[in-house]
Amino acid sequence: MGGPEEIGGLWAVVPAGGAGTRLWPLSRAASPKFLHDLSGTGRSLLQSTWDRLEGMTRGRVVIVTGSAHVAAVREQLPSLDAADVLVEPCPRDSMPAIGLAAAVIAGREPDAVIGSFAADHVIGDVGAFHDCVREAVAVARTGYLVTLGVTPTGPATAFGYIRQGPALGTAGAPSARGVLEFVEKPDASTAQRYLDSGEFLWNAGMFVVRARLLMGLLEDYQPELARGLREVAARPERMAQVWPSLTRIAIDNAVAEPAAADGRVAVVPASFGWDDVGDFASLAGLLADSTGHPGLKVLGGADGVVARDSTGLVAAGGQRLVALVGVDDLVVVDTPDALLVMHRDRAQEVRAVVEQLKESGRADLV
Amino acid sequence: MGGPEEIGGLWAVVPAGGAGTRLWPLSRAASPKFLHDLSGTGRSLLQSTWDRLEGMTRGRVVIVTGSAHVAAVREQLPSLDAADVLVEPCPRDSMPAIGLAAAVIAGREPDAVIGSFAADHVIGDVGAFHDCVREAVAVARTGYLVTLGVTPTGPATAFGYIRQGPALGTAGAPSARGVLEFVEKPDASTAQRYLDSGEFLWNAGMFVVRARLLMGLLEDYQPELARGLREVAARPERMAQVWPSLTRIAIDNAVAEPAAADGRVAVVPASFGWDDVGDFASLAGLLADSTGHPGLKVLGGADGVVARDSTGLVAAGGQRLVALVGVDDLVVVDTPDALLVMHRDRAQEVRAVVEQLKESGRADLV
Repeated sequence: MGGPEEIGGLWAVVPAGGAGTRLWPLSRAASPKFLHDLSGTGRSLLQSTWDRLEGMTRGRVVIVTGSAHVAAVREQLPSLDAADVLVEPCPRDSMPAIGLAAAVIAGREPDAVIGSFAADHVIGDVGAFHDCVREAVAVARTGYLVTLGVTPTGPATAFGYIRQGPALGTAGAPSARGVLEFVEKPDASTAQRYLDSGEFLWNAGMFVVRARLLMGLLEDYQPELARGLREVAARPERMAQVWPSLTRIAIDNAVAEPAAADGRVAVVPASFGWDDVGDFASLAGLLADSTGHPGLKVLGGADGVVARDSTGLVAAGGQRLVALVGVDDLVVVDTPDALLVMHRDRAQEVRAVVEQLKESGRADLV
Repeated sequence: MGGPEEIGGLWAVVPAGGAGTRLWPLSRAASPKFLHDLSGTGRSLLQSTWDRLEGMTRGRVVIVTGSAHVAAVREQLPSLDAADVLVEPCPRDSMPAIGLAAAVIAGREPDAVIGSFAADHVIGDVGAFHDCVREAVAVARTGYLVTLGVTPTGPATAFGYIRQGPALGTAGAPSARGVLEFVEKPDASTAQRYLDSGEFLWNAGMFVVRARLLMGLLEDYQPELARGLREVAARPERMAQVWPSLTRIAIDNAVAEPAAADGRVAVVPASFGWDDVGDFASLAGLLADSTGHPGLKVLGGADGVVARDSTGLVAAGGQRLVALVGVDDLVVVDTPDALLVMHRDRAQEVRAVVEQLKESGRADLV
C-alpha cells in the first residue's frame, strides 16, 4: 500500500461550510452535511475528503469552517493540527474562505500551491483524482488558475459549466486545456446542447493555484477583499472585526470568471466519478441496492428496514423500525425529531420545506 | 340534552379484544386498537363505545377483555364497576366472551336482554344507533336472536353479509325482518350482486338477545361450551382451569348461523354510519381533510405536519415533525419505535409485515 505519492509543495484547502439544506432533515444548520456519513462507509464526507488529501499532501491540509463547527471538525479529524483550522466568525461564501487560507499558507511557504476541495463532495476513483490533481499542480506552477472540470455524465442543470479551449501542452499535464469561459447553470435544453457539443465540463468548484497567484488575482479583481484577507492573515486578532465586513462572494465570480476572460485559467478534465450529494435523488444514485430489494437504497442500517415491493431511499438512524409497503421512488428520512417522506422527483423541494419551517417558527428543526 | 332514554332491562356487553393487526404500528398486541383514539376526538374507541351505551343502559355495561388489558380498560373507564369487567385468561373468540357475559348477567337479572357491541367500531349517528337498538330489544323480547345489519354503502368484500327475509311486523320494531342466512365474505363480483339485489346487509357483529335465550341457543348448538360457561359464571374461581379448554369460536358460527337456519334470527337494518376501522384505508375514510390540505388526513396533531402537494393519511403522535412532499395516497404512521410508510391501496398487507416481524424475531414490535 503506502498511500499516494506526495505532491511536493501542495497544500489542500478544505472549505467546510454550507448547510446542505436539500438534505434536511439529515443535514441541519447545527450539523451540516459534511459531518455526516452519507456513503454508508462509516466515514463522514469531511473524513473521506481528509482521507483523499492527507496522503498526497503529507498532512498539509487546512480546513476553513464556521465557529459553530470547529469542535466537531476537530473531533472527526483528530490528527489535524489546531493551527490548520481557520475559523470564520460568519459565512462569507467561498472566496474569503479560500483567500484567507491562501494568505495564511503563502505566509508559511511562499511558493506553495493550494488545491481547494469542498468537504462535502464524493469522489469515486481516488487514484484518478490524485492523477488529475498532479496534472493541475503542474499547470498551476506555470502560472495558471487551474480548475478540475468534471466530464459530464448527463445533461445536468444543477451545475455551472466550463467551456474548454485548446490544449496547453504543459509538461506533466497532458490533458490540460485553456478555459474560454465559465457559464451559469443552464436550462435543460442548453444542458443537452452543452453535453452534445463535448466542449463543456461541469464546474465542480475545485481550484488549484499558487497561493501567491491567487492573492495576486484577488488584488486585480477584488482589491478590497484582498486587503482585508491580508490583514486578518497577518493579525488574526483582527478577525472578529474585519471578517464581517468582507464581501460575500464565491471564488467563481470573484476571480475564476474574470481570470478566464483574461486567459489566465486552465482546466484538467476529470472522469473520476464526482458527486456533490446535492439532494436525496443524488444521494440515492450513489448508494447500492439493499440486499434482496432491487431499487431500494438504505442508508444507516438495513436491519431496521422491512420492505415489501418498494423502491427508493430510506435514510434512518436505526433507532426505529421502518416498514415500507408498495411505495415507489420514495425518499424516507427518519431522524429523532423530524421525518421526511417525499417522492424522489421532488428532491429539490426540500429547500421549500426548510423555508416553511423557518417562517412558521420551527427554526429549531432546520 | 339529558342523554338518551333508558332501554329498560338492556345490558350492554362489550367484547374488548382483537389485536387490530392491520392497524400496526398504531395498534399493538400490548395496546390494541380499542384503546386508541382513532377518531381524533380525544376518546378511545372503547371510550366512545362506552359513551354510546352508558346512557341507554344507565351504566349496565359489562366489558369482557383479556387479562393484559384489564388495567388499561379500568383506567380509560373510571366509572366502570370492577364487577362489570370479565377477564379472559386467554382469547377464545367472541362466543365464549359473549356467552360468559350472558351467563353472568342472567344470574343477576333473569329477564335481561343483552346487546353485544364491539369495543373497536365507529358509529356515525348515535341517535339512529339508539333507535335501532330499541327496535332490536323489542324484537329480542319476542324470542329472537336479533342482529343489527348495516345497509351496505358499497360492494365491500371485507365483511360477511346477512340475507334478509320478510318483515316481522313486531310492535315497536317496524323495520325488523327475519334473517334467511348469514353468508361469508364474498368476492368482488358477488359483493356487487349482493349490493344490487338490495336483499343483503353487512354483518357488523352486533347481536341483541335475551341472555337466557342465548344460553338456550348455546345448549342447542354448542352444549359443551354452554356447560363450561355456566360453570365459570357460577364459580369464577374455576376460570383459569376451565377457560382454556373452551371451544374457540365466533358467535356467528356458534349460534347465529344455525339459529338463522332454524328461523330464530331477526335483523334490524341499520343506516347509522358504521365502520369497523379494519385498516388504514378505512381509517382514512373516517377522518376529515386537514385544514388547507385537500385529500390529506391527519390523526394526532396537524401542527406537527408540513405537507406540500400530498394526499393520504398521516398518523403521528406529534413527537416528531412529519414533512410530506409530492406523495399521493400514502399512509404514514409514526410511532416511537416503528414507522410505516405504505400506499393506501396496500392497507391489507400490514398483516404480512406483522407476520414478517414475528418470524424475524421482532415480536417486541408487534
